[in-house]
Amino acid sequence: MLTTELSDADISALRANKERLARDLHHSCQWGSGIRWGNDPTETGMQRLALSDEDREVRDWFVQTMKNLKCQITVDEMGNIFAVKPGRRTDVPATFIGSHLDTQPTGGRYDGILGVLAGVEALKRMDELGLETEGGVGVVNWTNEEGARFPMSMVSSGVWAECIPLSKAHDLKEVPTVASLPSAASAPETMKAALERIGYLGDVPCSYKSIPMAAHFELHIEQGPHLISAGQRVGVVTAVQAYRWFRLEITGRDTHTGTTAFEHRADALYAFAQMMVRAREVAAAKGCLASVGIIEAAPGSVNTVPGRVSFSLDIRGPETALVAEVEDELRSAFDEIAAAEGAGIGKPCQVKWTLDFDSPAIKFHEDCIDCVQESALAVVADAPVADTKALVRPIMSGAGHDSVFASKRVPTSMIFVPCRDGVSHHPEEFCSEDDCATGASVILQAVVRYDRRRFK
Amino acid sequence: MLTTELSDADISALRANKERLARDLHHSCQWGSGIRWGNDPTETGMQRLALSDEDREVRDWFVQTMKNLKCQITVDEMGNIFAVKPGRRTDVPATFIGSHLDTQPTGGRYDGILGVLAGVEALKRMDELGLETEGGVGVVNWTNEEGARFPMSMVSSGVWAECIPLSKAHDLKEVPTVASLPSAASAPETMKAALERIGYLGDVPCSYKSIPMAAHFELHIEQGPHLISAGQRVGVVTAVQAYRWFRLEITGRDTHTGTTAFEHRADALYAFAQMMVRAREVAAAKGCLASVGIIEAAPGSVNTVPGRVSFSLDIRGPETALVAEVEDELRSAFDEIAAAEGAGIGKPCQVKWTLDFDSPAIKFHEDCIDCVQESALAVVADAPVADTKALVRPIMSGAGHDSVFASKRVPTSMIFVPCRDGVSHHPEEFCSEDDCATGASVILQAVVRYDRRRFK
Repeated sequence: MLTTELSDADISALRANKERLARDLHHSCQWGSGIRWGNDPTETGMQRLALSDEDREVRDWFVQTMKNLKCQITVDEMGNIFAVKPGRRTDVPATFIGSHLDTQPTGGRYDGILGVLAGVEALKRMDELGLETEGGVGVVNWTNEEGARFPMSMVSSGVWAECIPLSKAHDLKEVPTVASLPSAASAPETMKAALERIGYLGDVPCSYKSIPMAAHFELHIEQGPHLISAGQRVGVVTAVQAYRWFRLEITGRDTHTGTTAFEHRADALYAFAQMMVRAREVAAAKGCLASVGIIEAAPGSVNTVPGRVSFSLDIRGPETALVAEVEDELRSAFDEIAAAEGAGIGKPCQVKWTLDFDSPAIKFHEDCIDCVQESALAVVADAPVADTKALVRPIMSGAGHDSVFASKRVPTSMIFVPCRDGVSHHPEEFCSEDDCATGASVILQAVVRYDRRRFK
Repeated sequence: MLTTELSDADISALRANKERLARDLHHSCQWGSGIRWGNDPTETGMQRLALSDEDREVRDWFVQTMKNLKCQITVDEMGNIFAVKPGRRTDVPATFIGSHLDTQPTGGRYDGILGVLAGVEALKRMDELGLETEGGVGVVNWTNEEGARFPMSMVSSGVWAECIPLSKAHDLKEVPTVASLPSAASAPETMKAALERIGYLGDVPCSYKSIPMAAHFELHIEQGPHLISAGQRVGVVTAVQAYRWFRLEITGRDTHTGTTAFEHRADALYAFAQMMVRAREVAAAKGCLASVGIIEAAPGSVNTVPGRVSFSLDIRGPETALVAEVEDELRSAFDEIAAAEGAGIGKPCQVKWTLDFDSPAIKFHEDCIDCVQESALAVVADAPVADTKALVRPIMSGAGHDSVFASKRVPTSMIFVPCRDGVSHHPEEFCSEDDCATGASVILQAVVRYDRRRFK
C-alpha cells in the first residue's frame, strides 16, 4: 500500500511494536553495557564511547539489521551510517530518522540509542505492513554525537552540514580523562585513526550535497524534568537553546602549602573555586545555565598549591544573546577574581579563554513541527484521560542534538518523551517501554505524514 | 686534629667552601633537571620523583662520593642511605646531617637537595682539614620525603622512627597524576617494587634501633618569606607546625549540563568549589592554612555535571589543637554545603573524609637548638652590618621535614636559610650561593659543637 493511499484515520492508527522495540533496544545495549543499578538484566548504564570496539559491534549489528530490511547502506568519511529503504520514486532524497549510538562514559540506554532504534522499529513496522512511501525513508546513525571521547559534540552531523571542516573533525584527539578508561587505547587516538581502526572510515564525502535528505526527524528522551513532572507524554520540540563551550586556563604559582601564607599565594585552584561559584550566580540571574564538567589542576601534589588549572565551561540559555551576556559578565568577573589572587605578591593569577564550540539558538521547521504535532495528538488520543491534548506540549531542547546541524540544511524537528526524574548522562537514565513506544509511534506517523505532504 | 682540641675561635672560624658546594649541588641536579626559567645552565627546576631513574642516578653519585670520603654506606629496607665517616670512638652512634634528594613534580634545586649537599660539603671540609670527631659523622638521604610520587611525605624517616609500619610504606602506590608523567612507568608501581627496580631495596631493617643516631641536624630553605623579607640570614628552627592531610570524596549525581536546572542538580564539583572557598575563610580566621593540591572530577565530560569529586585537603597551624578546631569547623561546614546541593531533588551530595596523615606540632631539642644558635651567630659575625645578631632569628617551620620523625627518637633541630620570594615547590625556587654556604657553614659548626658537647 502507498502512503498516499492511506486515510487520515489509517495514519493515526499506525503504532510501533512496543515489545519488539524494547527487545531490540536492550539487545543493542549488550555492546558497551555499563554500571549496574538494578537486578534486571537491562538495568545497567552504558559506556559505549564513539568508535570504541563496542561501538563497532553495535554498528555491525545496525548495518546487518538494516540490510535485512532491504536498506541500502552508505558510510561516509565521518563514519555516519545512512540506511535507506527506497520509496516509489528514486529521483528524490529520503526522509530520515536519525540519532546516535554512542554514549557518555557513564551514560544510559536511551540517550541517542532510542532515536536510532525507533528508526529501526519504524522501518520494521512499515515493512510488515507492506507500506510503501513515495520518497525513500532512511535511518542515520551519526558518529560521536556526545563529544565525550572526541571533544566536539555533534561533530559528524556538523561536518555533513558543512559547518565543521572535515580535517578539523578527523584530527580531533580523544580526551585524556576518557582515554584513561580501560576501554580506550592507552595513547590518545585521532578520530580518523579510530574510524580506520574499527573499519568505519567510508569513502563517500560527508556532506549534505553528497548525501541529501528531504527532512530529518529525531526522537529523544527529554533529559529534563518538564514532561515527567507534568505527567505529559510527548514534547513537540520547536527550538534548541543556545550554548557555548569554552576551555579556560588559570595560571598562578606553584608554592608550598605549608609555608605560604594565603596572602602570598597565587592559587589557581582557589581562583577556580571562586569562579565556579560566581558562574552559577551570574547564569541563574539571567535564566541561563553554566556548568563545569572537566577540571585538571597541576602539578597535582598534596602539599603544592596548584599553579595551573584548566577547566571546561558550558554556558546555555534560551536566546543566543543571553548566552553572550553571561559570557561577558563572567569574563569580567573571572578577570577580577584572578587579579585578586596573587595580588599580594605582585603576581596575580591570569585566566585565558578558548571558545571550543558555539551553537546559536535554533528554530525548527514549521512543516516538520506540524507533522510531529499531528502525530503526537493522534498517538495519545486513546489515552484514558479526559483531555488527551494536554498530554502533548511544545518544548524547547536544553541540549544540542544532531538535529541542530541537520536543521541548517533540511527541514527538521524533534520529539521528546519523558525520562525518569529528568535524568540523563547517568547510568540510571530510564524511559519506560510505553514511553519509548509512544515516541516511536509518533516518529513513524510523522515520517508518513511528511512523505504525504511532500507529494501532495 | 680532634674536635676536642679545637678552641672556640677555631670552631667559629670553620666555613664551608661556597664554590665547591654550588658546583656539587648543580652537578647533582643534572639528574632530573626540569622546567627552564633562565638562561644559565643552572636555571631550571627539578623533576626528580622518588625512586625514578633520575633518583637512582643521583643516589649512585651520592654513594660514590661518600665512599671517596671513606664513609661506610648502609642502605635500609626503605632505601634510606646512611653514609658514616667513623670518629675516634666506634662504640657510639654518629651525629647525622640529613635531608632528601627527591623533588616535587615541578620542584626546584634546593628543597632537600641543599640539605644533603651541605652534609657532603661538611664532610669534604672536615676531610681536607684533617678534622677528626669523637663520635662519627654521617649524612643520610631519606627516601620519598616529598610524598609526591608515593603519597605519604617523610614516609621513610617515619618508618625509621617506627611511627609508620614498614608494610604500609612498602605497599604505597604511586599517585595517578604523577604516574602519568612521562618519566614514570605507565602502571602504578608500589614503593617496594620501585625500590627493587632501581636497586635500592636494602636488607638492613629500617629502624632507629638498627641504625642509631646521636642527633639529627637538617639544613633547609625556609620555603616562606620571613627571612628574605626581613633581610635575615639564618633561621634557628625551634618547632614545626601541626598538620593533617585528608582525602575527601563528594558524591552527587551525574546529569546533563544542558537540561538540568540548577535546583535539580547534585553537582559534586559545585559543592567542592564552595568547600574550597569556605576552607580558606575558616582557616584564615584561626591563623591556620587549608589547601587543596589534588582534585579529580568524574566522569569528566564537558556536558555532564560531575557526580563524583575527590580532593586532598592539607590543614596546618601553629598548634595541634588549632588544626583540630579547623577540621571540626570544616566538617560541619562541608556537611551543610553537601546537604544543600541536591536538596531540590531529595538526593543531596554526601562528603566522606579519610585521614591520610596526622603530624602534631613538634618542639626541637634544646641542645641541638643551642648548637645551631651558637654556630649561626658565629657564621654571620663577619657580616658588614652593625648588629650581626639581628641576622639570626628563631623560627617555626611551616612544612614537615624528615627532622620531624628524627626528633621523635633523637635530639634534633634544623637550620633555615632564605629563598627568593619565599617560594618553593616551584621550578624557580632559588637560594643564593652565599646563603647556601652560610647554611652549610652553620651545620658544619653545629655538628662539631654537638660532638664536643657529647664528649665534654
